[in-house]
Amino acid sequence: MKKTKISEIKVFAPATAANLACGFDVFGLALAAPGDFVQMRLNNSHAIRILKISGDHGMLSMNPDENTVSVSVRALLDKLEIKQGFDIILRKKMPLGSGMGSSAASAVAGVFAANQLLGQPFSKTELVRFAMEGERIACGSAHADNVGPSMLGGICLVRSNDPLDIISLPVPPQLFVVLVHPHINVLTRDSRAVLPAAVPLKAATSQWANTAAFVAGLFNNDYSLIGKSVVDHVAEPHRARLIPGFDEVKKAALENGALACSISGSGPSVFALVKGEAGCQKLARAMRKGFSSLNIGSEVYISRVNKKGVSIV
Amino acid sequence: MKKTKISEIKVFAPATAANLACGFDVFGLALAAPGDFVQMRLNNSHAIRILKISGDHGMLSMNPDENTVSVSVRALLDKLEIKQGFDIILRKKMPLGSGMGSSAASAVAGVFAANQLLGQPFSKTELVRFAMEGERIACGSAHADNVGPSMLGGICLVRSNDPLDIISLPVPPQLFVVLVHPHINVLTRDSRAVLPAAVPLKAATSQWANTAAFVAGLFNNDYSLIGKSVVDHVAEPHRARLIPGFDEVKKAALENGALACSISGSGPSVFALVKGEAGCQKLARAMRKGFSSLNIGSEVYISRVNKKGVSIV
Repeated sequence: MKKTKISEIKVFAPATAANLACGFDVFGLALAAPGDFVQMRLNNSHAIRILKISGDHGMLSMNPDENTVSVSVRALLDKLEIKQGFDIILRKKMPLGSGMGSSAASAVAGVFAANQLLGQPFSKTELVRFAMEGERIACGSAHADNVGPSMLGGICLVRSNDPLDIISLPVPPQLFVVLVHPHINVLTRDSRAVLPAAVPLKAATSQWANTAAFVAGLFNNDYSLIGKSVVDHVAEPHRARLIPGFDEVKKAALENGALACSISGSGPSVFALVKGEAGCQKLARAMRKGFSSLNIGSEVYISRVNKKGVSIV
Repeated sequence: MKKTKISEIKVFAPATAANLACGFDVFGLALAAPGDFVQMRLNNSHAIRILKISGDHGMLSMNPDENTVSVSVRALLDKLEIKQGFDIILRKKMPLGSGMGSSAASAVAGVFAANQLLGQPFSKTELVRFAMEGERIACGSAHADNVGPSMLGGICLVRSNDPLDIISLPVPPQLFVVLVHPHINVLTRDSRAVLPAAVPLKAATSQWANTAAFVAGLFNNDYSLIGKSVVDHVAEPHRARLIPGFDEVKKAALENGALACSISGSGPSVFALVKGEAGCQKLARAMRKGFSSLNIGSEVYISRVNKKGVSIV
């Protein structure tokens, strides 16, 4: 169904928490905020131009061949085999290198905006693979655990990246996410490097029992089971060493009512899952204190799971 | 709630297929048949006596300290801190050492029968841990992936053996199981020995993506997703070598409409999951042919998933 073309659009793509402890490289969920805003308009050249980037502290390239937002749009155009120019303004309203899916949000916002301006030739699900090309230049591999939930919203299971198979999971109504971003730098490269090449069979078995149990917990609105299953025997023991204060922050979260607490993506952000909104502020303060006691500043984001995903502003 | 005591009972505990490919050590399902029959009555001594065992070709011990059926009953009595004698007749109507949960079925039948004769002090779920003591003497470790479904019926996820945490999963209405038992011997010891001590991270990640997807498939009655997710990157590649003809049997199953096909438990039985009953007979013939072409005899069991589990006959 071809829609009427518009010439300019502004969209928002949310931040995401990937892995969710047990589901290394396979689970991700979308936050209500923060996220990236992309303003895009058709131009009469055949060039994709990045006019402006704000909120990145000068860290991102304005070169359209090097920026995730434009590379993703180019992948979309290549698939359509058309030439079309776009002018892009990217407003990053979320931290980079935070483990919150910053590059994914930009890519998702880019392809979603371009798809709207082109009359929606693709569904959201189809757009995921173009946004994954943005992940490829940002992270070295085309994976969907952040792109999927930023695009589709909700909680996603990436069963396979190639061929792409994403399953949307149910979101229990009382599930809240508290995400604390500490002001430290952890390079994705380093957090990949500390991972073991192989997982002891026993730890691996626990992990696949827990991913299965997490899904059952989501379908059954079983918050207790969600809490028990969102644990990580594989990546967290290694990556926690890269995040000063992680053990204290996690302890504080669990002592203050969190169902579960672990590293968001490759870190350094730390997320907690919570049943109900009531205790979230107190929980967030306790988690931040774990960092501030080491003189590490942080900001916190409290939200329901964002079931909508990327959207027009 | 204490029920009226009866002095004699006959029960049936079904065979089970554990692992279900992706879920090594964590998934299991119950078959309608075959299974074990146990006849039990209270006696006036304090002794647990095995009066007779049939169908075991003389392979099982009549010594109550060495037989899974009696050891499990003793674990139950120890928990109650009572002394009570039982006379037990065990009729094995299923093959031993087949990867169909033979020792688990005997243990489940034993504790379920004893619990009935004692006025049901325990729920079925509570009985699982006693039956696991039978598994401990039969296999060396107390695991629940066969005991769970034989007791509770349906498809079980054993999230953890200790502390025990079993989750009953939904059973899609059109799901059928074709299980072929080839007449070859594979020792559980050997099928454990071929397993690697560690799993490459990439294979492990696929595995926990697939256990999660399998659960989503069961909740959504998504047979296609069930088929895609019931694959095994961890145990099957190693254990298949112990089963002559496995590759041909699996190929035959998939070519004849199976959603998925893999090794039942530690083998040598091979199971296929099928949507609908219509094609099961043809599928079963094709699978058996894979064995018979190597002059290996087999028998086949076709059934829905048994949602009832152990029951009074």
